[in-house]
Amino acid sequence: MKSQPGHTSVEVVALRAGTRETRSESVVIEEPLELRLDGAPLAITMRTPGHDLELAAGFLITEGVVADFGAVNTIAHCDETRNVVEIRTEPGAAGVRVPELRHFFASSSCGICGKATLEALRTLAPALHADGVRVNADVLAALPARLRSAQPLFRETGAVHAAALFDAQGALLCAREDVGRHNAVDKLVGWAALENRLPLSGTILLASGRLGFEIAQKALVAGIPVLAAISGPSSLAVELARENGMTLVAFLRGDAWNVYAGVERIRIP
Amino acid sequence: MKSQPGHTSVEVVALRAGTRETRSESVVIEEPLELRLDGAPLAITMRTPGHDLELAAGFLITEGVVADFGAVNTIAHCDETRNVVEIRTEPGAAGVRVPELRHFFASSSCGICGKATLEALRTLAPALHADGVRVNADVLAALPARLRSAQPLFRETGAVHAAALFDAQGALLCAREDVGRHNAVDKLVGWAALENRLPLSGTILLASGRLGFEIAQKALVAGIPVLAAISGPSSLAVELARENGMTLVAFLRGDAWNVYAGVERIRIP
Repeated sequence: MKSQPGHTSVEVVALRAGTRETRSESVVIEEPLELRLDGAPLAITMRTPGHDLELAAGFLITEGVVADFGAVNTIAHCDETRNVVEIRTEPGAAGVRVPELRHFFASSSCGICGKATLEALRTLAPALHADGVRVNADVLAALPARLRSAQPLFRETGAVHAAALFDAQGALLCAREDVGRHNAVDKLVGWAALENRLPLSGTILLASGRLGFEIAQKALVAGIPVLAAISGPSSLAVELARENGMTLVAFLRGDAWNVYAGVERIRIP
Repeated sequence: MKSQPGHTSVEVVALRAGTRETRSESVVIEEPLELRLDGAPLAITMRTPGHDLELAAGFLITEGVVADFGAVNTIAHCDETRNVVEIRTEPGAAGVRVPELRHFFASSSCGICGKATLEALRTLAPALHADGVRVNADVLAALPARLRSAQPLFRETGAVHAAALFDAQGALLCAREDVGRHNAVDKLVGWAALENRLPLSGTILLASGRLGFEIAQKALVAGIPVLAAISGPSSLAVELARENGMTLVAFLRGDAWNVYAGVERIRIP
């Protein structure tokens, strides 16, 4: 396999209406990334290489490993491999918390468990109720086209998730693609952390696919008031948005879509 | 929220070409499931309730917790909640292995880490090279339509993954839907375990979306020789299939699709 940024080409047998030919196809690269916190293993995730330091920074924030990003001294690739990132925190810094096994799991697996952790989340997350941003409905309706133009890896491989951050006027702030939808969001949040833009008040996060609890939780912790998805939400994502004052829009495709929570932020003509 | 099997209805504000109305929409249910092994926490996953015992059985197998399903005595819901399943193994049974933290993570998060674990997998998984099943190309091309007709929850909610098992003639053996694509596969494998059908020699697994390492690994451990997906594969899924003698078909949509590995199992007219 010859490597390209984010994708590689493989030989396939292509069947086209009964004919058969050997050709080259692009596939998205998936490789493990190990995060080490002050020398100890913290997490392993399967990701698309690229923006690894942002991924690490975002993970630290959205999983509640650091309450204040100022506690992080350095984030750097290990010398030996691109698949390990080492994080060093300020010695004695407050608010650095290695999640318990249970939490770890849960968040890695795709979300956090049940009511007890929903409670914990609320103390971790900023109150979005106070975010008074307003977004025009036609601004939201125009976002999917802008997301598509920021998905080069999807165009190349057809098998990768994307997430993008927009301001309230619909200007693209940042877009990321990854084999893991949670990684795409962590890369965005990590970008914001490294740019010193947290919390992400007044912004809109658009996810390329469906919307589960995990994505809603990560957006909440990053302080994103408006969450939108091309496909549909899960029950727990809706519940989380409603309980925490987040606006949740889904099935955002053209001019027929639904608002599941926080409709007061949307200006409907 | 009023509960229905696998989905629930929520009030939304629906925007349709500039008009606004309040209506009821179905969302797929997402809830945490905790698995306990002989009294100790084993894993937590966010899943769609239903077929929980199959999910538990499949997880035990595809994550290598039990080498032999005969070591499992009972799998049952906890009395207090539908969100906990308790697994009891035969006292003193060999081959029961609580995965290490690292493995746990990795597999929960979406895959297993790197080459070392790829090696471990090969010892865990049956050799698929020996599975001599042959499948007609037109049988494969007909599977997506059969999968669609086995996705009632997707039709209702538009936001749920599916996986289905077929025999080599394309007859549907079992189909499952879940908010987590890995859970849908674990439910299938658990169904097979409880029906005493493992390993799944001679079968085809079709996944509704993209195909990453995690799904390929689970199919491999279950002994499924032919893996197909509606969307595209990742680099690591292709590598895993090639190294282990698995047939991998992707972009299976109508009569134009690709074979990434194990083309010798496919009869092309």
